[in-house]
Amino acid sequence: MSVDGEPSKDIHRPDHPSSVGWVAHQRVELFNDNPLNLEAGGSLSSVITEYETYGLLNSKRNNAVLILHALTGDAHVAGWDSAPEGDLREYRKFKPGWWDQMVGPSKAIDTDRFFVVCGNVLGSCYGTVGPSSVNPKTNKAWGLSFPVVTVGDWARHQAALLDYLGLDYVQCVLGGSMGGQVALELALAYPERFKGLIILSAGHRVTTQGLAFNAVGRRAILTDSNFNNGDYYDGPRPLSGLAAARMMAQITYLSEESMGHKFGRRLRGKDSPDFTLTGVEFEMESYLNHQADSFVKRYDANSYLYLTRAMDYYDAAAKWGGGILAETAAIIQARTLMVSFSSDWLFPPDLCRELVSAMCLARRPVSYVNIPSRYGHDAFLVETEQVRRLIHGFLATNAL
Amino acid sequence: MSVDGEPSKDIHRPDHPSSVGWVAHQRVELFNDNPLNLEAGGSLSSVITEYETYGLLNSKRNNAVLILHALTGDAHVAGWDSAPEGDLREYRKFKPGWWDQMVGPSKAIDTDRFFVVCGNVLGSCYGTVGPSSVNPKTNKAWGLSFPVVTVGDWARHQAALLDYLGLDYVQCVLGGSMGGQVALELALAYPERFKGLIILSAGHRVTTQGLAFNAVGRRAILTDSNFNNGDYYDGPRPLSGLAAARMMAQITYLSEESMGHKFGRRLRGKDSPDFTLTGVEFEMESYLNHQADSFVKRYDANSYLYLTRAMDYYDAAAKWGGGILAETAAIIQARTLMVSFSSDWLFPPDLCRELVSAMCLARRPVSYVNIPSRYGHDAFLVETEQVRRLIHGFLATNAL
Repeated sequence: MSVDGEPSKDIHRPDHPSSVGWVAHQRVELFNDNPLNLEAGGSLSSVITEYETYGLLNSKRNNAVLILHALTGDAHVAGWDSAPEGDLREYRKFKPGWWDQMVGPSKAIDTDRFFVVCGNVLGSCYGTVGPSSVNPKTNKAWGLSFPVVTVGDWARHQAALLDYLGLDYVQCVLGGSMGGQVALELALAYPERFKGLIILSAGHRVTTQGLAFNAVGRRAILTDSNFNNGDYYDGPRPLSGLAAARMMAQITYLSEESMGHKFGRRLRGKDSPDFTLTGVEFEMESYLNHQADSFVKRYDANSYLYLTRAMDYYDAAAKWGGGILAETAAIIQARTLMVSFSSDWLFPPDLCRELVSAMCLARRPVSYVNIPSRYGHDAFLVETEQVRRLIHGFLATNAL
Repeated sequence: MSVDGEPSKDIHRPDHPSSVGWVAHQRVELFNDNPLNLEAGGSLSSVITEYETYGLLNSKRNNAVLILHALTGDAHVAGWDSAPEGDLREYRKFKPGWWDQMVGPSKAIDTDRFFVVCGNVLGSCYGTVGPSSVNPKTNKAWGLSFPVVTVGDWARHQAALLDYLGLDYVQCVLGGSMGGQVALELALAYPERFKGLIILSAGHRVTTQGLAFNAVGRRAILTDSNFNNGDYYDGPRPLSGLAAARMMAQITYLSEESMGHKFGRRLRGKDSPDFTLTGVEFEMESYLNHQADSFVKRYDANSYLYLTRAMDYYDAAAKWGGGILAETAAIIQARTLMVSFSSDWLFPPDLCRELVSAMCLARRPVSYVNIPSRYGHDAFLVETEQVRRLIHGFLATNAL
């Protein structure tokens, strides 16, 4: 499945030998004894955390792989959700987890060999506590009273999940886009815990353009007349603002080449335009509207605010190296594979190469591949064959 | 002044010998006898049209230069508005016309030699009739009852203005961005009327990505709770939607390089973040907010819908060459100068080169310059020195 939610052609049904089959999400309360102190101030305790696992942990407890999901993703990486809840019922009916092509028996992340874990990030709306969760102290949804969370907090939260699962040592931590930021932060915050690190379509910070797009998306949500300062759960939701944010973001996930190839200037179901300002004329518009309409059914506007803000704040060089990226890179002990895609302009290859160069300068073991692709930022989920081969090869040599 | 409304450093005050000085907008009713039949159907008569002129028409009436303005521009190209009206009072107080660096005595478009004309396009909110004008039949603002207009209609409207001014023959027609589209259309629709054609940062169509951004901008306006199907002139206006549209568009006018250079990750007036979801953290955000807030004071949301839609629809190859660009290009008789900017991703150099190639194939006289610049689409208004030299040189040889 691509970021845009379209099922890929090679879907494995649950009874396929390469599918992990029917899966159930799991939930655990973390930080029951000691609260999670947050970078931005404040703390959270009894942090309900949704996660999934696939494959079996070996007796040495050393075959775990930790996957981090992207901005609008969740812990449901592979297989078919046996009991989807709420808004996800419709969404998950016809599709497996978001990286099903990559995770399963005999797949690149081979669940016959690895114990695969994915935990939903703090602030999300997919099971882990976030602004749409009920605050037990008030019996109302948190809304904007939920504390601001950062990539650093996410890393400590994921580490607590690993602790709970008894995973002191992890073969590989990996993620794409926002998930790549969290993977990098984990390798920086817990350098001895991760043998391998794979970062796809991500970097040590977002670009200035990325900051700008996130700011516009948030402003669209904040100025939606239904936003009500984030306290909208008992009334109409700020769907217009969230839709606009998603449509704009969707453009940044694609490329002019892929959109031109897929849609060009084709009109939607007609040979000549209707000359309408309010209706749909072009296939391109119809696609964006469809993306937005399905997205707002499954995502929470407040979560969009929290997660994009956390991406904005992340600056690994500032946090770990006093602004010097090579000093940051020197902290990493994991063997690292960095993958960028030629047409990705959200996390462009030039940005990815900054971290690779810094690791080289710091004499850290890093491999870098820039995959020629027309699919833009989405490529990390679309260029399945190339990504599969890279991850498979990396995990094979990593285990030596 | 750049597209983003910031005055450049070399502003000429009205008493400067290179300024055209204080100027007054002029208005004329066109299509009084025969209505303007519109491409999308319907017609308009008694079309109130705002324009400005600078310099003197010579006795042969052959020294005219026609300038077309961009999406949010107007007929006030040069000099200082002696009597700004309504919302423009504040906006125009401290700055001359939008291309003052280029137009004036001894400037690139030398008003000692040329009679310079610029007419505001149909559908705009700057004097020419548009959705915010009062429909004399109803005594109410047109709103969405204003007919859909196209680039073809704009060209015929501009030609009628030339007719009114008695200008059968024009030395050069030129424009940037949307203005470049209109200039191209004029050279196609009236091939013998224009001796020269200069297109800056524009092309024979918008990209698919351009269609997409325009669609998101319009959706933000259409879903603003104050939009009221375009009938908002007596109540609160859809400023939030218009602001979001403008902020997003503003990103497409710049480049990652220019934004990175100007703003990077700098925080706004502080050394460490406030960790706020609703407030401003980064300079980049503050800039976009400022852009949006000043834009919504001077622009009409309905006009934004009409003008972006017209840009979407324009496809010179489909209209003039049965889809074949070389056949379209063969129609052009004007000596042509095409200028693109290396970092422009709204009208990227590759797109500009399509028209240049087609003109070469059709053996039409075309020169092409791709100016290395980090300023993105804005470059056509920012790279003043390079653009000045090109236009000056072109007009000098054009007059031979």
